[in-house]
Amino acid sequence: MSIDGGSARVRDQEWDSGSLGDMPPEEFSRLAHDVVDWMAGYLDGVRDLPVFPNVAPGDIRSQLPTHAPDHPEDLSDALRDFRDIIVPGITHWNHPSFHAYFSITGSAPGILGEMLAAALNVNHMVWRSSPAATELEEVALAWLRGLVGLPDVFDGHINDTASTSTMYALAAARERAYPEAHEAGLFGQRPGRVYASGHTHSSVEKGTLALGLGRQAFRAVDTDDEHRMRPDALRSAMLEDGKAGLVPIAVVPTLGTTSTTAIDPVAEVVDVAREFGAWVHVDAAYGGPAAIVPEVRELYHGWEGADSIVINPHKWLFTPIDCSVLYCRDPDALIRAFSLVPAYLETPESGAARNLMDYGVALGRRFRALKLWFVMRAFGRSGLEARIRAHLQMARTLADAVDAEPNWERMASVPLALVVFRYAPREMDDEAADAANRAIIDRVNETGRAFIGPTRIDGRTVIRVAIGNLKTTPSDVESVWDAIRDAAASL
Amino acid sequence: MSIDGGSARVRDQEWDSGSLGDMPPEEFSRLAHDVVDWMAGYLDGVRDLPVFPNVAPGDIRSQLPTHAPDHPEDLSDALRDFRDIIVPGITHWNHPSFHAYFSITGSAPGILGEMLAAALNVNHMVWRSSPAATELEEVALAWLRGLVGLPDVFDGHINDTASTSTMYALAAARERAYPEAHEAGLFGQRPGRVYASGHTHSSVEKGTLALGLGRQAFRAVDTDDEHRMRPDALRSAMLEDGKAGLVPIAVVPTLGTTSTTAIDPVAEVVDVAREFGAWVHVDAAYGGPAAIVPEVRELYHGWEGADSIVINPHKWLFTPIDCSVLYCRDPDALIRAFSLVPAYLETPESGAARNLMDYGVALGRRFRALKLWFVMRAFGRSGLEARIRAHLQMARTLADAVDAEPNWERMASVPLALVVFRYAPREMDDEAADAANRAIIDRVNETGRAFIGPTRIDGRTVIRVAIGNLKTTPSDVESVWDAIRDAAASL
Repeated sequence: MSIDGGSARVRDQEWDSGSLGDMPPEEFSRLAHDVVDWMAGYLDGVRDLPVFPNVAPGDIRSQLPTHAPDHPEDLSDALRDFRDIIVPGITHWNHPSFHAYFSITGSAPGILGEMLAAALNVNHMVWRSSPAATELEEVALAWLRGLVGLPDVFDGHINDTASTSTMYALAAARERAYPEAHEAGLFGQRPGRVYASGHTHSSVEKGTLALGLGRQAFRAVDTDDEHRMRPDALRSAMLEDGKAGLVPIAVVPTLGTTSTTAIDPVAEVVDVAREFGAWVHVDAAYGGPAAIVPEVRELYHGWEGADSIVINPHKWLFTPIDCSVLYCRDPDALIRAFSLVPAYLETPESGAARNLMDYGVALGRRFRALKLWFVMRAFGRSGLEARIRAHLQMARTLADAVDAEPNWERMASVPLALVVFRYAPREMDDEAADAANRAIIDRVNETGRAFIGPTRIDGRTVIRVAIGNLKTTPSDVESVWDAIRDAAASL
Repeated sequence: MSIDGGSARVRDQEWDSGSLGDMPPEEFSRLAHDVVDWMAGYLDGVRDLPVFPNVAPGDIRSQLPTHAPDHPEDLSDALRDFRDIIVPGITHWNHPSFHAYFSITGSAPGILGEMLAAALNVNHMVWRSSPAATELEEVALAWLRGLVGLPDVFDGHINDTASTSTMYALAAARERAYPEAHEAGLFGQRPGRVYASGHTHSSVEKGTLALGLGRQAFRAVDTDDEHRMRPDALRSAMLEDGKAGLVPIAVVPTLGTTSTTAIDPVAEVVDVAREFGAWVHVDAAYGGPAAIVPEVRELYHGWEGADSIVINPHKWLFTPIDCSVLYCRDPDALIRAFSLVPAYLETPESGAARNLMDYGVALGRRFRALKLWFVMRAFGRSGLEARIRAHLQMARTLADAVDAEPNWERMASVPLALVVFRYAPREMDDEAADAANRAIIDRVNETGRAFIGPTRIDGRTVIRVAIGNLKTTPSDVESVWDAIRDAAASL
């Protein structure tokens, strides 16, 4: 073939001259070292930044052009804008006083894994499109399964988020409950139910909705005074629904609910679900990694009886976002729900190797196992256990401190590393207390000293302080408690 | 609060001593600079590696321990294993002779963006959980919209993959077709249809399946001799289905199909879909970025009439995986399909700022806009146009070369940067030719000189050569063509 013939107008020299191709290697190297210096300085100094930025909606956008540049820019300029415009608008999840949502850490080993994954830029949708990425995902998830004490009947794969993992698990449950719907859809079928406690994560309801089951398919089961699903209430609900002709699709117990980290009694829930033939999906997105700690694992007794379990290393296993693991007792159930192999994705290894695209909707797959593998190697079982236990202990210390103050009320027990409480002086009625707690949260967050969040428990607005960052020390927790009390005093 | 009270057993000193907390800053800095040196060397030298590794299923897994280490390991050991065990099992998507699937590049500017995103580790599910990440996503997607010439009625957000984007678009279509199903599910509804050509990506059928519509809801519309959806066949199919009482849910034209990069006549398809009130989702996951090139954009005339469009910067816009953009004319349609706001995610900015969690299933969100923004700044409109045009030209040159050889048959025209063809000497029957082409693909891939893929067109096994890597030069394309002809000669 001659490149001079036909329509050819490009020449190899255009790559050599840099008018085509990527950034020159020496420029990448120079900028990447600069970026690492910034990263190292940022991670070391994040404690001195305001946790929540002092910006209003639109403040960042208004500082940037509305159109892409017509011509190449020096990337140093973009890096400068990153530093001067973007970073001042970041909420610092790395800050040791970030206590909103679930506090997380993308640890140094995990960041190094992300750097290498970005350089390799592989897509292991099928085994042959990157054998090592597929097999390291198998290895890393076997390691994690061992760390949290699950039996090896559970087979895992990595998704972006727990909401996705849960939707996939519910899709497998739907496939089992309505085998004919695979071809014909849900149209001719009897309505069904997905059961979870009223404290379950919104992803269960969202998954139910996405799968075409409708919001009415979600039934919130009553909880006890520790906000845990009541197995007797579950049984009553399933009996009642069965009499009404509804199909029992799935039951979703949670190990560590978002509002209070309540731990549903999973063994009893599994027993009830089994009576009715429903799939059991355990939401351990937050709580799962803590099963590395023996005294926590006891609380999860019976979770090994589930059909599927979601655990998020990006929440409490020091792995950068995103990394959500879905373990499934019968991975073929996922394959039955999802597998479709077009001609351009047929491979000679079919049968001999696993093609991870078959386990869900997403076809493309980032090499997410690498960061998780680095984290497990760098910290080891003992290091992970010590770090998670330290978080548990700091949470209990804060709980004790709240309990010791007369004007404060703790709203839930603390089985994991989240403390929920409210300012509730005797003379304040509930409405006034709600307003006071909202104001306390806003004031603390406005100081930039800490970032905390609200939730509602038993109808009341309360303060959530989640502990999960590797940099957070007992003194930091003392400081956030001081900031909260200062805010209350200033009302 | 005293940390000596109650259950406290951890002390600040344990962080200072490094027995808790993250890797020490100086160790991170040292390792990260080492990692950058490896990355730079890898990217510069990837041309000398075999594209497809010489490994069999299980080869990588068998070199690794079955359990996580009990105690911390030096991360240098993990980096050594990465280099010695993992990299030799990687299929190098960065290699200039990677031509399987759709050839992609995670360019240097994009990699720098991923490094910073990993360090920040923010999750912008709501505006306040990272204002700058939310607003940069808005800015970057407005830039991209301008580059590809879409009107600003289209509002975008980033998902992991096109399969996810397409499923979300089809969920919005389902919501519009079956408003009552939001509460009651699809159970009482009339079955419906999603239309696409038989050459559409598997994600359309998979999305249909995931949403509970059933495989029967997917109807493949006849194509013309260029593998493009026939608008008259679409109209006939929709009329026929309408008489049978089926609900017209969505029509999915593709701009650049996976097997041949056929470009469905989107303007006419939109017109037909409008007659029946169906949602139009355009799959431009691969082809979309090429709309930056004016002569390509002409081919997409009418795509601006769609309800939603998916464009993947991680395919042909030099952005590391994953980054799939879903543009939607009526983003509220996505919100109606998906939004659920639990108490722990209520924010004071609700109404004034966008909360990106409301547009799909996934709650957590990586800061993916940063890498895309860096790519657009580093290359600029002119640089992106020149690079994509170079790929188009190399593909046409290869097509001309195939056409000039007597024993070879080109199987489709080349509107974008994919050439599909087969070895078909006059004396070979079709079955023998299928076997020969499978053997040619395997032999080329075994050499490690190039990585190409198969597909089937009109029932025949053919060779796909996709061009999309920034390092690929005309000489490289000449080499892969030589390798293919060598393999044929060796049969």
